[in-house]
Amino acid sequence: MKYNIPADVPKNKEETYKKNLKSATNATNHLMLFAGDQKVEHLNNDFYGKDIPLEDNSPEHLFKIASRAKIGVFATQFGLISRYGRDYKNIPYLVKLNSKTNLVPYDKQDPYSKAWLSVGDVVAFAKESKLDIKGVGYTVYLVGAYEHEMLTQAASIVHEAHKNGLLAVLWIYPKGRFVKDEHDGHLIAGAAGVGAALGADFVKLKVPYDKKGKFNPKLLREATMAAGRTGVLCEGGAKTDEKEFLTQLYEQIHKGGSRGNGTGRNIHQRPLQEAVKMANAVYAITSQNATVKEALKLL
Amino acid sequence: MKYNIPADVPKNKEETYKKNLKSATNATNHLMLFAGDQKVEHLNNDFYGKDIPLEDNSPEHLFKIASRAKIGVFATQFGLISRYGRDYKNIPYLVKLNSKTNLVPYDKQDPYSKAWLSVGDVVAFAKESKLDIKGVGYTVYLVGAYEHEMLTQAASIVHEAHKNGLLAVLWIYPKGRFVKDEHDGHLIAGAAGVGAALGADFVKLKVPYDKKGKFNPKLLREATMAAGRTGVLCEGGAKTDEKEFLTQLYEQIHKGGSRGNGTGRNIHQRPLQEAVKMANAVYAITSQNATVKEALKLL
Amino acid sequence: MKYNIPADVPKNKEETYKKNLKSATNATNHLMLFAGDQKVEHLNNDFYGKDIPLEDNSPEHLFKIASRAKIGVFATQFGLISRYGRDYKNIPYLVKLNSKTNLVPYDKQDPYSKAWLSVGDVVAFAKESKLDIKGVGYTVYLVGAYEHEMLTQAASIVHEAHKNGLLAVLWIYPKGRFVKDEHDGHLIAGAAGVGAALGADFVKLKVPYDKKGKFNPKLLREATMAAGRTGVLCEGGAKTDEKEFLTQLYEQIHKGGSRGNGTGRNIHQRPLQEAVKMANAVYAITSQNATVKEALKLL
Amino acid sequence: MKYNIPADVPKNKEETYKKNLKSATNATNHLMLFAGDQKVEHLNNDFYGKDIPLEDNSPEHLFKIASRAKIGVFATQFGLISRYGRDYKNIPYLVKLNSKTNLVPYDKQDPYSKAWLSVGDVVAFAKESKLDIKGVGYTVYLVGAYEHEMLTQAASIVHEAHKNGLLAVLWIYPKGRFVKDEHDGHLIAGAAGVGAALGADFVKLKVPYDKKGKFNPKLLREATMAAGRTGVLCEGGAKTDEKEFLTQLYEQIHKGGSRGNGTGRNIHQRPLQEAVKMANAVYAITSQNATVKEALKLL
Amino acid sequence: MKYNIPADVPKNKEETYKKNLKSATNATNHLMLFAGDQKVEHLNNDFYGKDIPLEDNSPEHLFKIASRAKIGVFATQFGLISRYGRDYKNIPYLVKLNSKTNLVPYDKQDPYSKAWLSVGDVVAFAKESKLDIKGVGYTVYLVGAYEHEMLTQAASIVHEAHKNGLLAVLWIYPKGRFVKDEHDGHLIAGAAGVGAALGADFVKLKVPYDKKGKFNPKLLREATMAAGRTGVLCEGGAKTDEKEFLTQLYEQIHKGGSRGNGTGRNIHQRPLQEAVKMANAVYAITSQNATVKEALKLL
Repeated sequence: MKYNIPADVPKNKEETYKKNLKSATNATNHLMLFAGDQKVEHLNNDFYGKDIPLEDNSPEHLFKIASRAKIGVFATQFGLISRYGRDYKNIPYLVKLNSKTNLVPYDKQDPYSKAWLSVGDVVAFAKESKLDIKGVGYTVYLVGAYEHEMLTQAASIVHEAHKNGLLAVLWIYPKGRFVKDEHDGHLIAGAAGVGAALGADFVKLKVPYDKKGKFNPKLLREATMAAGRTGVLCEGGAKTDEKEFLTQLYEQIHKGGSRGNGTGRNIHQRPLQEAVKMANAVYAITSQNATVKEALKLL
Repeated sequence: MKYNIPADVPKNKEETYKKNLKSATNATNHLMLFAGDQKVEHLNNDFYGKDIPLEDNSPEHLFKIASRAKIGVFATQFGLISRYGRDYKNIPYLVKLNSKTNLVPYDKQDPYSKAWLSVGDVVAFAKESKLDIKGVGYTVYLVGAYEHEMLTQAASIVHEAHKNGLLAVLWIYPKGRFVKDEHDGHLIAGAAGVGAALGADFVKLKVPYDKKGKFNPKLLREATMAAGRTGVLCEGGAKTDEKEFLTQLYEQIHKGGSRGNGTGRNIHQRPLQEAVKMANAVYAITSQNATVKEALKLL
Repeated sequence: MKYNIPADVPKNKEETYKKNLKSATNATNHLMLFAGDQKVEHLNNDFYGKDIPLEDNSPEHLFKIASRAKIGVFATQFGLISRYGRDYKNIPYLVKLNSKTNLVPYDKQDPYSKAWLSVGDVVAFAKESKLDIKGVGYTVYLVGAYEHEMLTQAASIVHEAHKNGLLAVLWIYPKGRFVKDEHDGHLIAGAAGVGAALGADFVKLKVPYDKKGKFNPKLLREATMAAGRTGVLCEGGAKTDEKEFLTQLYEQIHKGGSRGNGTGRNIHQRPLQEAVKMANAVYAITSQNATVKEALKLL
Repeated sequence: MKYNIPADVPKNKEETYKKNLKSATNATNHLMLFAGDQKVEHLNNDFYGKDIPLEDNSPEHLFKIASRAKIGVFATQFGLISRYGRDYKNIPYLVKLNSKTNLVPYDKQDPYSKAWLSVGDVVAFAKESKLDIKGVGYTVYLVGAYEHEMLTQAASIVHEAHKNGLLAVLWIYPKGRFVKDEHDGHLIAGAAGVGAALGADFVKLKVPYDKKGKFNPKLLREATMAAGRTGVLCEGGAKTDEKEFLTQLYEQIHKGGSRGNGTGRNIHQRPLQEAVKMANAVYAITSQNATVKEALKLL
Repeated sequence: MKYNIPADVPKNKEETYKKNLKSATNATNHLMLFAGDQKVEHLNNDFYGKDIPLEDNSPEHLFKIASRAKIGVFATQFGLISRYGRDYKNIPYLVKLNSKTNLVPYDKQDPYSKAWLSVGDVVAFAKESKLDIKGVGYTVYLVGAYEHEMLTQAASIVHEAHKNGLLAVLWIYPKGRFVKDEHDGHLIAGAAGVGAALGADFVKLKVPYDKKGKFNPKLLREATMAAGRTGVLCEGGAKTDEKEFLTQLYEQIHKGGSRGNGTGRNIHQRPLQEAVKMANAVYAITSQNATVKEALKLL
């Protein structure tokens, strides 16, 4: 398979970059990202409550899933990787560099999520700890008083990642006072284009809805085309029915042109064994070219 | 005893980190933190007034207690350690890196408490002064316009502490306009998860109350589980009856799963001898596995 | 031809600077800048919709045009150059260093567009990737709370570019609450003077309109004279009729004293072959001293 | 006399620190600080007007007094020291690192006074110029949007001063919208505690008043005790009757426990000879253990 | 003539400093500053319009005047010096380091003018380009949310200039919401004192008016005395009658104690020959001790 290597990956890091991209995508260029950064983004809402198994309340649940299931990368904060990494050395990690809480509504104050640590910190950490860190992630909120800071950090993080042969994934969400519909397909295509202009390898986006609030894979094509060589990952969202989830995932890729997904709650809000199976099913569709039917057999 | 060493502690600092953790917790992994940072946080309210012995008004009172009592660490500002350290070399210190005053109400202006000095400053100071500095502390207020700065500083401070074999303790408090109940158990569990994502060794939290405003150790379990490998320290709060205080402390640890406490006023708002005894009692329950009855005998 | 070399181009970079200026302007000192930074500035509005060919939705459309047409420089973000550069090595690039989205109206919040990367990053990238990068670009919004940041960054970027023998192009737009008419000739002349004071090689400006909202080349003379040795590039604006566009371009140069143009939508919002021809026509008038008649023959 | 040397004064700077402290305090540990930073803080109000001798309008008046009178240190801005220093080499200087004007009322906008230069600049300057610089000063306003910046700068300045063997004096004033009474004794004691936590050698504070607005030395004891090993300097305030001023100064020290004073207007708003005598009288009480009677003889 | 050399000019730069001061002031210590920074400060208002000769619209007009007339220094932005410097090597330059536009009224938003480049950039540029750069300039607006930034930058710029043997000129203007009368003599004297405290060699100030809005040289004496060893330069202001202008200039120096002037519009808003003559007349009074009568003969 031919990889599109960004021009800012230096010669002596090309092999590292290719190896990271190949192993993270199972040589399909499609990425299954297991999203585990919600301990900050949603505080404890996603991990404790009605219909959530108690074991999900422990951060270790995420690491158990990530180490036993087939996944592309497990995206979570540096601190959690640091605390559990020595016992979970087989996980392919992606360090999510920024996070914010959900305490302030987006329309009350423009959101700003700042990088907690630098790419250089991650590179030094990977070298010292020998953990398998394949890339870094960063969220950009398009809007308002801090957009410029996040765009600048994102551009710098992508570039620094590439200079070190790492993958760079951006979460890009238009938000706040001036955004009427976060699921508008044209707006999401705009975010996709921003991800491309920032040089990201993958950009995680909201899923576009039609006027009735339904996902329609055709709407997604504007975004996946606008993203160019940057792969679009669709947000997993709140937990739903397995078949519905996997069918939609399949359509995102095969009809909408996405190149993967970022799934959290639909995996970790289950007992360990079920969660591992669900992750495997998501991986099968994303990075093993499975059909929905084949994937459902894994559950 | 087996210690969970974070992966960002480099090989050549593992022994230092283990030694700091072992001695600070009496090899129990439970930390008794004697909190002495209120000269800034509460100005002089905690040290002078009705029912407070006059001697508490002098900062040296804290050092006298810390040097004569059994404690895990004495947490206070760098400047006080600098002014009294040469005469109190036997104290195990934790440098509280940030502090703010209480002059502005939290709902009038989003709080920001910035690190006064860097971890590097502390490391160099420890080396030059030969004082026994076991770790650093930092407060994060979750909310508002400066949350991003405090999260970034906290992540950086924890990582720098670990790189130098020091312990990192975070005080994490959701605050301000958008927080309705600071003692809500689910919210506190969210703060615990933030502490875990930041990689802290210990996180100091508010105590959860039930709807009647009473402490219930069961409510605490959500937070201590959500904190994962990060130990939860319960805030000591305002001075109360000894027996009640120690009983609650015992329940926090044995029923609520906390791994220690941060106690200030309940210790230092007493004459020296009494304060030393109270500190010893708190230490006995926290780090010597004593019962409430055994602890009460120490008073 | 004699070039006016800025005094902050050091001796050992004079040849590089001259070569960049000569090749970018076809030795005419007039620059045809193919503007391709709108994926961020206008999100997906310029690339997808009624009357826009579907192929324009892919970022690669811009690179195909730029590599097949005659152009001075192709201005776009670093990330896009990075993702497509290895396959489009013949394009003369100008890295647009800052961009912002259009989500927030200018009168609701003072605009701030911050440099995503430094000139040093660009210089190192050019050396490593061997791409033909002739210069850098930066937008300054004159007005409001962030004007000082953008003026400072602009001055620094121009100076750093010159120190490395690169061209520096500034986009300068008075905007927002206190600007009544962005097309006022006297105001645009003010922006031109700011560009001169910042030391830019070229400054991209709005086109001045008379009181009826019509372009009048005489009005432009105030700005082109005020710009001094900094060349004025007129903004291309929304797509219009070819003849009208080329005629106006000719008048801008020959009657208004401009030294080029920055054209985006009037080129890329066409199928590839048409787009290439239109670019060639714009280039002919700008940098080959063609008449409108001669240029129209190229379509 | 035994000096309390802060633990952050390194071994190789202990002698320098002791020498500075000893000479500045005449080996009494009590500091007479001649305050001359009002050219910025109060603009020209303190130097020109009714009842002020014309010669006070020239900055040199301050230098003449400082060079002829007995003083502990003369505190003023770097720029003035730089302009007059070569002609006034015998003055013991303290560089006041920050200043702000009084144009904006404290309740209209939270005050921020930022360090103009670094301690490193001062150290290099002292070495190059051979001027006798004994320390640095910095004002902290407790309150509001910039408190965190000033606390951080203050902590850093104190630490940097100590690392270089210099004295550090902090001016600490709670101010603004949320402060009802700047002369409240309990609030001033809080400021004293902040000074201690910042590690200052001396902290300049407002004088506490009773409910009738009268100074009462007993009220001062809360602050001087709360300050611990940090010496309290009482603000001199507006010019008053000599006997009243000196009596109050004596009571501040001998009944209130202060360790000196910061006096400006009560000295410099007089003709040179009178000013020198007044400074000598203030010095006598502060650092020569004189009685009020003895001091009055010097006038 | 004896020069007052600031103590922060290092030994090895004393000769450079003296040479710069001597040549800029024609050994009189009085400075004629030809002000040419208005292309940003006033946009194109000063250069194009009724009663302004067309040639003034080109930036080169300023360089032509500066190279043919007798002047102390020509103050303008780095970018203009960079673009014209190679052709105007005989001009004594002063690099005006900051500038802002006039688009936002001072009472709508607190002004902030930030340094575009550093003194280090200027020093390196002077060395590389061999241009005759005698000093740097910087504007401080006293008031509001950014005063602290401008005071800090000004102090640092003056100090860095001196360390390199360069002159430092500050423009200091109280402005905005809280300033009732910018021409109040006592307020201007306050600004003068700030300039002295910042260590400037010269400070450019507004001219004080009496209650009828008339200049009165006696009012100026408060400011020139308060400025101490910092020389006061009076602002030239809008273009007026030659005799009136020169008479006022003479009175400013000989009755008001100013040490020069900063004149722009009264010089450059004339055809080249007249402008050169007017500059020569201003120079004659300022730095050649001419009478008004003698100066008028030069026109």
